[in-house]
Amino acid sequence: MKVLLTGGAGYIGTHVAVELIEQGHGVVIADDLSNSSAEAVRRVEQITGASIPLVVVDLSRPGQADHVLAEHPVDAVIHLAAFKAVGESVAQPLEYYRNNIDSTLELLAAMKRHGVSRFVFSSSGTAYEEPITLPLVETAPTGLAATNPYSRSKAIIERILVDVAASDPDLQVAILRYFNPVGNHPSGLIGEDPLGIPNNLMPFVSQVAGGRRDRVSVFGDTYDTPDGTGVRDYVHVMDLATGHVAALATLAPGVEAYNLGTGRGTSVLELIAAYSAVVGRQIPYEIVPPRPGDAAATYANVDKANRELHWRATRSLEDACRDAWAWQSANPRGYES
Amino acid sequence: MKVLLTGGAGYIGTHVAVELIEQGHGVVIADDLSNSSAEAVRRVEQITGASIPLVVVDLSRPGQADHVLAEHPVDAVIHLAAFKAVGESVAQPLEYYRNNIDSTLELLAAMKRHGVSRFVFSSSGTAYEEPITLPLVETAPTGLAATNPYSRSKAIIERILVDVAASDPDLQVAILRYFNPVGNHPSGLIGEDPLGIPNNLMPFVSQVAGGRRDRVSVFGDTYDTPDGTGVRDYVHVMDLATGHVAALATLAPGVEAYNLGTGRGTSVLELIAAYSAVVGRQIPYEIVPPRPGDAAATYANVDKANRELHWRATRSLEDACRDAWAWQSANPRGYES
Repeated sequence: MKVLLTGGAGYIGTHVAVELIEQGHGVVIADDLSNSSAEAVRRVEQITGASIPLVVVDLSRPGQADHVLAEHPVDAVIHLAAFKAVGESVAQPLEYYRNNIDSTLELLAAMKRHGVSRFVFSSSGTAYEEPITLPLVETAPTGLAATNPYSRSKAIIERILVDVAASDPDLQVAILRYFNPVGNHPSGLIGEDPLGIPNNLMPFVSQVAGGRRDRVSVFGDTYDTPDGTGVRDYVHVMDLATGHVAALATLAPGVEAYNLGTGRGTSVLELIAAYSAVVGRQIPYEIVPPRPGDAAATYANVDKANRELHWRATRSLEDACRDAWAWQSANPRGYES
Repeated sequence: MKVLLTGGAGYIGTHVAVELIEQGHGVVIADDLSNSSAEAVRRVEQITGASIPLVVVDLSRPGQADHVLAEHPVDAVIHLAAFKAVGESVAQPLEYYRNNIDSTLELLAAMKRHGVSRFVFSSSGTAYEEPITLPLVETAPTGLAATNPYSRSKAIIERILVDVAASDPDLQVAILRYFNPVGNHPSGLIGEDPLGIPNNLMPFVSQVAGGRRDRVSVFGDTYDTPDGTGVRDYVHVMDLATGHVAALATLAPGVEAYNLGTGRGTSVLELIAAYSAVVGRQIPYEIVPPRPGDAAATYANVDKANRELHWRATRSLEDACRDAWAWQSANPRGYES
């Protein structure tokens, strides 16, 4: 299949691109490069030996998705492009709703015009409504009672997809609810490269390990969890990438949602300890106030993906830390290096 | 106050315009005229003696709301513009979500740029999540489990408003959850003028009473209601209009939601009987299958609007039928007549 990968220059997108190409698919990347780099796409070409068209475009703008599909006929769309920072979504909800919802609406309308019916959507384990019951199962509701505007934008899009599929019997949709992606390609050529201070834990730890920052900010240690720090289900981004290819292969008319996680919870302090073991020294950290909108603990039930996609995460947290350290060491300032 | 009334050429908008002007406010109308008529605005001018600027614009398109507010400085926005047909929203969910959400996002962003902080939003009593408990109280959740894409678009916008107000302490929002508006200005100069076959009951009954259609289609008679037909809370549109002006006067920083209804449920057959009494003959009807997405019964608890807005509906269903018949008799083909 030829696949349009939106947000394909980003952290998850580059890894999905590698996996798609290695499994014999063709890839076109559309990305506005607002939080990613054209260099990342060149690195994917370096890893895979493939040539990858990169269309620099804001898909949330009217008509842009249509132009992309007119120029690049594809069999499927994997839609990763989105604003994704929880804290920023609280401060700038209008921009988050606009960008995330509109890009999806534009893509779906353009797909209909160009006869493309396969759609894989990048959702989030944070789209489940509060209060949550652990482990999170796909049948739990996602909706407006998710914890923050970013997560609500994902829940809204999930519901839009269900409504659009109900009105269009050809549409085939897989919703992938990511838990917390970490690690990177073992080559160390691609990885997570956040703008400014990292919002996610692993790149923050990597930057401290590499000396770019003094210490890790641990957001809260009084959560109702074993060590008081937040518990997340960290899934290796290479596992996440194989999950996308498996979802693409399993598409059928209608909408199915899948958790992509490991099924295990890890605390912030446990992750810092695992990373410290990889680098052979203690990573310094300090406890700071919790961030608004953060949940105490989340981890997935992954039986459905295992059963229907024949997928499971096979890489360990240690694998992720080792790969992240390889990326950080070779690229201390990310793709700028 | 000078007020921008979006969708102001429509059924509810024209009545709100009359009421605003009669209470001393200035009005600018923005409307794309996709389901309304410039003649309606002329009729409002005829009733009120005021001159009303009409900007013909699709506010969901990028930059259009900004142009309107640049050209017409206002103190407040009453946002009624939306696609509103339940059945159509099931068939065309993409267009409903796009139009209804984007017009609101564009307005809010433009208001921020122009320093406008007062916003009254036209929501719906159908935005409450299923299963509902009667009477509907404002504390009941609105959300993605509302019954159809139209209603979900309203629930989504309500939540966006809460998030935007949380990020912007200046913003003052009233969410008005309409129940079923009926009737019209007693002059018979303005009224509900649907394109094609009416989706709402009262204009359908009016068109049958006027001989434009043979009989009323009653969508289902096996609901769990006293006579098996759907039960709704029909509120006179002139009462609804005074509710908007009351909400505008009561705005304060943050978001408050109000049901605007009568607090009483009326069945389809009861409404047909009331209209038949006004015209002095039985309006013919036939039972047809229920419409997807229609609820069996809804009616409001209106204590909050009564307490905080000092508002209550004062007009009866008979008033509404009499006014609707005056409008229908004088304008048998609506504004085309």
